[in-house]
Parts: sequence; structure tokens; C-alpha cells
Amino acid sequence: MNDLAWSGAMALAVEAGTRAHGTTSPNPPVGAVVLDPSGALVGTGYTQPPGGAHAEIGALAEAGDRARGGTAVVTLEPCAHHGRTPPCTSALVDAGVARVVFANADPNPKAAGGADVLRAAGVEVVHLPTHVEALRAWLHFARTGRPHVTWKYAATLDGRVAAADGTSRWISSPESRAEVHALRTTIDAIVVGTGTVRADDPRLTARGTDVTRQPLRVVVGTSDLPPGAHVLDGEAETLHVRTHDPDAVLAELGARGAVDVLVEGGPTLAGAFARAGRIDRVLAYLAPKLLGDGPTALRDAGVSTITDAVGLVVEQVSMCGPDVRISAVPASGR
Amino acid sequence: MNDLAWSGAMALAVEAGTRAHGTTSPNPPVGAVVLDPSGALVGTGYTQPPGGAHAEIGALAEAGDRARGGTAVVTLEPCAHHGRTPPCTSALVDAGVARVVFANADPNPKAAGGADVLRAAGVEVVHLPTHVEALRAWLHFARTGRPHVTWKYAATLDGRVAAADGTSRWISSPESRAEVHALRTTIDAIVVGTGTVRADDPRLTARGTDVTRQPLRVVVGTSDLPPGAHVLDGEAETLHVRTHDPDAVLAELGARGAVDVLVEGGPTLAGAFARAGRIDRVLAYLAPKLLGDGPTALRDAGVSTITDAVGLVVEQVSMCGPDVRISAVPASGR
Repeated sequence: MNDLAWSGAMALAVEAGTRAHGTTSPNPPVGAVVLDPSGALVGTGYTQPPGGAHAEIGALAEAGDRARGGTAVVTLEPCAHHGRTPPCTSALVDAGVARVVFANADPNPKAAGGADVLRAAGVEVVHLPTHVEALRAWLHFARTGRPHVTWKYAATLDGRVAAADGTSRWISSPESRAEVHALRTTIDAIVVGTGTVRADDPRLTARGTDVTRQPLRVVVGTSDLPPGAHVLDGEAETLHVRTHDPDAVLAELGARGAVDVLVEGGPTLAGAFARAGRIDRVLAYLAPKLLGDGPTALRDAGVSTITDAVGLVVEQVSMCGPDVRISAVPASGR
Repeated sequence: MNDLAWSGAMALAVEAGTRAHGTTSPNPPVGAVVLDPSGALVGTGYTQPPGGAHAEIGALAEAGDRARGGTAVVTLEPCAHHGRTPPCTSALVDAGVARVVFANADPNPKAAGGADVLRAAGVEVVHLPTHVEALRAWLHFARTGRPHVTWKYAATLDGRVAAADGTSRWISSPESRAEVHALRTTIDAIVVGTGTVRADDPRLTARGTDVTRQPLRVVVGTSDLPPGAHVLDGEAETLHVRTHDPDAVLAELGARGAVDVLVEGGPTLAGAFARAGRIDRVLAYLAPKLLGDGPTALRDAGVSTITDAVGLVVEQVSMCGPDVRISAVPASGR
């Protein structure tokens, strides 16, 4: 076993964790694999919904006696505390694993210290830093106490989210819309403003194959929702938060166990989140179209001169069908 | 010799032609290589400035007797007409080449027919279709009679070309600005509106290393240019076209031998070109910044509803320093 083999095993653990993405909040979607002393894969696990087993437990159960003297590879530092389930560190020690490799330290003070507990029990512990997309939001929540906010929008290449007459169906391609529906299955809450509900009457549900749960629908704003609006159709839970303050909205969502929040519009709501510094990721779907008129994606972000622009760093650019998909995060230091 | 070997030789010819890009209008920047009968490279040439030798002539001169029985590989079908220089077909036949491979048929009725002339003289002729970026504008001009128009803009991720207070220096990164200066060395004319001259007072020159020529500076609009404007500084020729009609502007530029035109702003001018269907390529530099206010890249494009949006196809996406560079062309059928 060496770094390269651990990286391969970590990739399997990351993949396992991805399967739990969207089903575990407020707990982290962790993945784990167990290798026997020869390095053979003998167990795979991922976090079960709240109250259920953690990833390590599932992987150890599958491995059984073959875990003894082996290696557990986990996307997050194993927990050392009794929550709704016993500490994973005890399970790892009891199973006799010789080594634990983990990708991300646990920033949660209540659960942290797992690495130290394992070392004290004679287990070799290796920190192998790895980006785990499924843990992005949870790690942010654990570090800041605030849900992670992705602002997603679809615009034309010239930055319009609708035409002059208000029509916007469809700016983006079927491929992009399918991807957004898949994204909705991994997040905890979708946030829009009352203006978007009135203008577009969106359903805000995840649609497509393999949809087993719906995110919480959150409408932000002081005005009443129009009777008969799709968000009131009962297909998913809907929360109307009568405030425009992003921090108040996020506090309410965090208290409800939402860790991963998707802000979908409109421009005024996005502007409020930008002004408050509460956009943790921008996900733009840019359609190869020109409109030359119509509303833009963002309004009133609190910026009046170029040197005060909100600075981002592009972390990924890809094609989504005919559209360009850009993922960007705040520039460091913000 | 086979298709694969010809493709390799064509890549060398394309590379040679790129060296001529920006120095040949209204003639095409062609590249050519000559291989001896064994397939060895014995000559390379590219179009000289107007009145100078065509690409084939340079390559044949370098090859000398070694061209006999060999292959000429050219990015454009060799010309069969007497312009300011004798026909290249005659030079190829006289040099005794056995085969001519070309990438693009010549759409110019005056110069076309080279392939037939060569075949009639007993030369094997192979059409090997290849995209030649340096010929893009010239081929468009030859097919349509209009200069090729690239609309270039730099915007924030949310589609703003300046902040609320009008400041725009700098939206895009030093890397993007350097690339635009390099682009300016390959085009014939830069077009802006009088509004941009008044607002930004741009110099519109190519700056940086290896700048040996300047494009024609073209200001479009009926109002007078402010005395002391940079475009009147004599660093490059400036043309003030007192019309807002894109076709009138392009006719004037075409008559002056401009084949490759860069429209750099502002939004109203870009809108006029979009409305007239006279944008042949969109080149967007998107900076990872958010402004939430300020002017957008395009205005009054003649589109009022989403189904009438100007449809494009993304042909290339790349990073330019921290910025995302998107090149798109009109969707087929427009």
C-alpha cells in the first residue's frame, strides 16, 4: 500500500459518498471503503439518512473479519462522538483496522478529534487531502454555521435571463435543464423570491428519472403568494419566509437542517445575497443566444464602481449540450 | 504518401499561412509547402503583402528542382488568373509538381477553376477539407462580398461591460487584453461607435510585442469626434463613417480592401450589427466578477421575445488567464 493505492481507494470512497449526496442533511454525505491487509477491496459504505448508519459502519459490516489488519479509507475524518449513532472511531478500533486514511478533517468541534482517538488506540492515521464535491456544502456549514449557497442562473451569452416581453422558456437547453433537475436532487432547499413566483410560477421540484426526494421550496419576500401557485401544490414542502434578509433566511434554513441551498432567482434576490456576501458558488448556464434586451441575472449587488466588483475564481468550465456551464467561487480573501 | 502524410503537410501549410494573417488583405493569407517525390519537405511559403508573391511561389522558389514530381500542399485552391501576379497554376505546372493538395476551394469566381486547370495539365489534384482559421474572414468575404465581422466584448459573468458609474477599466484580465491586442494585429479594421469614443476615448491600436502594422480605426456615427480624441492621434489611420447602417459601413470598408473587421463596441453599435444579421462571430471574454448594475454588452438587437433570440453555436471555449473566452458563430440556417 502506498499513496497511489490510497488515492485509488479514496476515489472509490468519494464515489460511494456521492450516492448519499442529498439524502443525509444535516449530516455529511460520507463515503468509505475498507481494504483487507493485501489491499483488496472488501467493503463499501456511505452515510444513510439521518438516524441511520454512518459510512464506515456500512463498509465495516460488508468487510466483516477481513477488515482486521486492513485499511479504512473515508472521505471525512471519522467521528468520535455519540450522536444518534455510536462513534465510528470505536467501530473502526473494534474491527481491528490497522490504518485509517481520510480526505477531510472534521471542522465540527463536537465530532472532531477522531484522528487523535484512533492514534491513541494504536491505529495509523493518514490525512490525504482530496476535494470531495459531495461534502462541499456540509464542510462550509460546519466551518461557518451557515448553509452553503449556490446561485444558479441561466442567461444568454449577452447576460439576459428573459426577453423584453418577459418570456424565458427556454433560455437554456434541455441538457442544461436536466442537469439542474439532477442538481435539485442533491440540495436541501431551493430559494426564489415572491417576484419569481408571480412572474414564472415555477414548480421548483426535481423532475426526471431517479427522483426519490424533493428539496424544500423556499419563497422569500413579504408579499403573499398567489393562490394556486405551483409552489403551493403539495408536490413538495414549501416555506414562505417573510423577510428579504439573506442571513435571516439562511438562519431559518440552517435551523431546519438545510445545509446545501440553491438560490434560483430572480435578479433582486440574487442581488441581496451578493450584497450580503452570501453567495458561495455561482453556477451559470450560458446559452449561445443573443437578446439585447430584457432583465439581467443580477440586480442591486451593492457595487457601484468596477474596483468594487465581486471577485470570483472560475473553478470549472464545461459544455452542457449547446450551453456553456461556468462554476465560480468567491476569490480567496473575500 | 497518403492522407495522413498530407494532413501533416497541410498542418505545416496552415502554420505558414498563419504567419501571413493580417498582412495580405484584400488577398487571402495562404500557406503552402512543397514535398519532394519522397515526401520530404523542400519548400515553405506564405502570401506576401498585396503585389508580392503568393504562397505557392515562395514555396516553389525554395524547393527549386526538388519540386519536380513532388506534391504542393496549399491551404487554398491555387489561383488560375492573372491579377497583380501571374497565375499560380502556371507556376506549379512549370515546376513539374505531380500533385496538388488543397484545403479550401476558391469561392472567388475570378480566381476559381485552378483545380480544373491543374487537372487539364496532368496534375493530380486532391481536395483535403481543413478548417483554416487565417482564411475564415477572407473565405466569408469571397462568398458574400462583405467583410467578416467579429463582435468582441469583455463583460462580467453577469453580463455587464461597465459598472454603474461607467468605470470599465479593467473588466477583463491582462491576459485577455494581451490576446485582444494580438487579435488586432490580424484584422483589417476596428469599428466602434462615436459614443464609445466619447465615453472611453480608446486608442484602438494594437499594442505589445511584434506589432508591425495597425488596423484601420473606424468610428461609426453621425456626431462629430471630440477634438483631442485618441483616435485622431495619428498613430494609425482613422475613418469616421457618418452612418449607423452596418451594411453601408461594411460596403465602405470592403471597398477599402478590409476583409476582416472587429466590432468592439458599444452596445448600441453591436445591436445595430446584430439587428442587421451582420455578426459573423461573437468573441466574448467573460471575467469572473459580478457587478449587478451598469450597461450590458448588447442593446436593441431587434429581439422582443425568447423564440426570436439570435441563435449561435459555441465553437470554442477556453480560459484566458482567469477569464472565460467563448467564440460562437451564427447557428446554421440563419
